[in-house]
Amino acid sequence: MDGLKRLEAIEAIRNLKARYFRLIDTKCWVELAGLFARDLEVRTPEGAVYVSGGQAYAESLRQSLERAVSCHQGLTGEVEITGDATARGIWAMQDVIEWAEAHPRMGWKSILGRGHYHETYRIENGAWRIATLTLTRLRLDVTWPDGRKPA
Amino acid sequence: MDGLKRLEAIEAIRNLKARYFRLIDTKCWVELAGLFARDLEVRTPEGAVYVSGGQAYAESLRQSLERAVSCHQGLTGEVEITGDATARGIWAMQDVIEWAEAHPRMGWKSILGRGHYHETYRIENGAWRIATLTLTRLRLDVTWPDGRKPA
Amino acid sequence: MDGLKRLEAIEAIRNLKARYFRLIDTKCWVELAGLFARDLEVRTPEGAVYVSGGQAYAESLRQSLERAVSCHQGLTGEVEITGDATARGIWAMQDVIEWAEAHPRMGWKSILGRGHYHETYRIENGAWRIATLTLTRLRLDVTWPDGRKPA
Repeated sequence: MDGLKRLEAIEAIRNLKARYFRLIDTKCWVELAGLFARDLEVRTPEGAVYVSGGQAYAESLRQSLERAVSCHQGLTGEVEITGDATARGIWAMQDVIEWAEAHPRMGWKSILGRGHYHETYRIENGAWRIATLTLTRLRLDVTWPDGRKPA
Repeated sequence: MDGLKRLEAIEAIRNLKARYFRLIDTKCWVELAGLFARDLEVRTPEGAVYVSGGQAYAESLRQSLERAVSCHQGLTGEVEITGDATARGIWAMQDVIEWAEAHPRMGWKSILGRGHYHETYRIENGAWRIATLTLTRLRLDVTWPDGRKPA
Repeated sequence: MDGLKRLEAIEAIRNLKARYFRLIDTKCWVELAGLFARDLEVRTPEGAVYVSGGQAYAESLRQSLERAVSCHQGLTGEVEITGDATARGIWAMQDVIEWAEAHPRMGWKSILGRGHYHETYRIENGAWRIATLTLTRLRLDVTWPDGRKPA
């Protein structure tokens, strides 16, 4: 890929990741699903796939966050173009989330986290999409309803 | 606009927004005013103009912040060039501000906020300037002098 | 430097700074040292050099942080290319650090800080490196072991 096309691809991916954060926090679930490859894989840091498919991931985020005030924010990023239609990136992140009652599966009242997204990207139907996504955490502080602590 | 000129414009606007945050927090009010279009409009999320003019906005920020330690920080952004001399952008933001006494109009002792700037830009006298600015908040936590709560 | 080369240099420096933050917090001290010019100067805001040499600075960070959970995060940046192989930049930053016991020299249990890196860059052995680095702080909140306050 020549120099200009490479920079344009990096800029498109930077824009993609910024929309990812904004669409989650403004609860635009339909538009959010459009940022993911159809066969998106969300993986644990150990490499296990725990969500398959862009629609499924957007739906999973909706279920977790629809009764929360969430702030997911991206900081500095490293984007590398690896082919004509493939790339990878690492993005520093923060999330501050407070649930009206509690996270529906985890039971948290609120979290404050910091870490990194490790991602790959692919052009699908003419636009860059997130193809794989792994979140590693430097730190995660949680609170529980009524001050309850985890067992 | 061709590809290179478009990327140069995006980079110039990214730099503009970074200076905006830095010049507010280092209280460089004269330089700050130079980042705004002469007829800047600062608008509420509903679209009402509540400050008109770049000089007036810089002066308004000075009055609000000169007796505070303020940290306004920008995160991921989406910039779109819409014409030869026009653009728009959305920037995630955080602000952490603590006043020596209290915000002169709002009465807050401190705030911790997160949200998005929705902006348009225009080339004026050869440089990109902020032409319109709207701040939407995901969340705003405030404290009051002496632990007082709002009525 | 022509337009494309200038944008490529800015992108390379943006990537360099993102790696700086990430390699500190993931404690990759050897890779971190590779980001610095051999004769790196770390300076106080007043201009005094307090660390000389990239290896020495990476070692100093290791000693300070190896028994801490650290989150150094970069926000908006301003990068200016000043020559064929020289540049400067300013980066907004946050750091949230908690030591297992205490910072080995300062005695802090934890800190929460915000400020700006003021840096210069240079191409050395074919890659952009950080050549000088000064951190100015807008704000630094510290806690002490056992709630102890500084004398």
